[in-house]
Amino acid sequence: MQDVTHLLQSHRSIRTFKDIPIEQSIVEELICSGQAAATSSFIQACTVIQVSKGAKREKIAELAGNQNYVKKAPVFLVFCADMHRHQLACEMHKVPMKSGYTEQLLTASIDCALFAQNVVIAAEALGLGICYIGGIRNDIAAVSSLLDLPDLAFPVFGLCLGYPDQNPEVKPRLPLSLTLKQNSYSQHKTLNEADKDDIAALEAYDQQIREYYKSRTSAQKEMSWTEQISGMLQKEARPHMMDFLQGKGFMKR
Amino acid sequence: MQDVTHLLQSHRSIRTFKDIPIEQSIVEELICSGQAAATSSFIQACTVIQVSKGAKREKIAELAGNQNYVKKAPVFLVFCADMHRHQLACEMHKVPMKSGYTEQLLTASIDCALFAQNVVIAAEALGLGICYIGGIRNDIAAVSSLLDLPDLAFPVFGLCLGYPDQNPEVKPRLPLSLTLKQNSYSQHKTLNEADKDDIAALEAYDQQIREYYKSRTSAQKEMSWTEQISGMLQKEARPHMMDFLQGKGFMKR
Repeated sequence: MQDVTHLLQSHRSIRTFKDIPIEQSIVEELICSGQAAATSSFIQACTVIQVSKGAKREKIAELAGNQNYVKKAPVFLVFCADMHRHQLACEMHKVPMKSGYTEQLLTASIDCALFAQNVVIAAEALGLGICYIGGIRNDIAAVSSLLDLPDLAFPVFGLCLGYPDQNPEVKPRLPLSLTLKQNSYSQHKTLNEADKDDIAALEAYDQQIREYYKSRTSAQKEMSWTEQISGMLQKEARPHMMDFLQGKGFMKR
Repeated sequence: MQDVTHLLQSHRSIRTFKDIPIEQSIVEELICSGQAAATSSFIQACTVIQVSKGAKREKIAELAGNQNYVKKAPVFLVFCADMHRHQLACEMHKVPMKSGYTEQLLTASIDCALFAQNVVIAAEALGLGICYIGGIRNDIAAVSSLLDLPDLAFPVFGLCLGYPDQNPEVKPRLPLSLTLKQNSYSQHKTLNEADKDDIAALEAYDQQIREYYKSRTSAQKEMSWTEQISGMLQKEARPHMMDFLQGKGFMKR
């Protein structure tokens, strides 16, 4: 199945969609593909909320940083890490539920990501384009409340789906020497020596990304990867998340 | 691409592998497919450590709960959430790095999951079988140390890969009424009313899972989904995770 490798390696986010609806039977088939992904100890801790066009979707688009494509995408899904269902299972059997573990935050979030990525692959195989929306975590409390999420559930990310009305380039990824290591992170050098190798690889990659940003068809800019990343990491990263998640019953311990 | 949907919906974990090696060029192609997945704000926060057969792999298999397939799988990969590279990027530009946010724990873990699920789909398309290994978090500090992981990096899960030497059934997933909701978690009922609907759906699913466990070809048992889940949730879930992650520089705030 060479075409699957080609499909996977052709991914780029799509933010402009044709004004063609997606049939609900297709959405349901995508969700079935999502559910088929591996799930940690069979917990199946992902619930998807499909948000139709209208006032609620527009409010989410605004909260996610005024992303017009969230408003306009034919289909918009919110992937929720959900252990409320597990609470019901415990009530059904009249046993207490041990919750609040950081481990459960991780397994539920990872369950959502594996599920969503299967939805994405199934969608792209049908010619649809997608864009993940982490921006719903900008004001996660407001999004959570708009979706009536109970305790032990939270919105992890959104996903826009639709037939692409643009054809952006594939963005070059980090070199393999940085992302695949053998037996040890520092490959049995000192960390300092390994870092020097990695910095050299990052410098070469920076050139490649600079070329990519300069020559791509839209939103051209002068920027390398380490410039972009180091710039981003001078800002706080959604500092409300810990309080919010603890309030929802996650990562208390 | 109907065959992609079929591929995705045919997934089951494989724990017995043929004694046939996987060429390293295939492993590298799988990693390239993994890297092509979406990444939050282009952070590319996943590093994979391939652990060859031998003492280190055997130690990891033991730490993961004496999982023989971890020891025996032709290829074993550990997916690490990695922001050490981002620290290097900040040092290259002589700027401080704001780290320790819960948000960064989530984005890095989700990056790993999207990456890994692409690796899995690419592998299964080639006829390989896989099994995710969350058990490496049983003693995450020891696994982290075996792999020489620096601060701001941690092992999220392992992945066994090989040509299947078994053909287990696909495990039935939760019904769509539980996993896909419209516009609201409680679908505009009270949560209490919505819970009643969900409990009815869980009871029907319990019957289906009971049948599945009773009739599958190996490891038959008498167990429903809510029994399994409620039993599991009476135990602590890796209570060391919060301390470990905070020690590694994650989720301090």
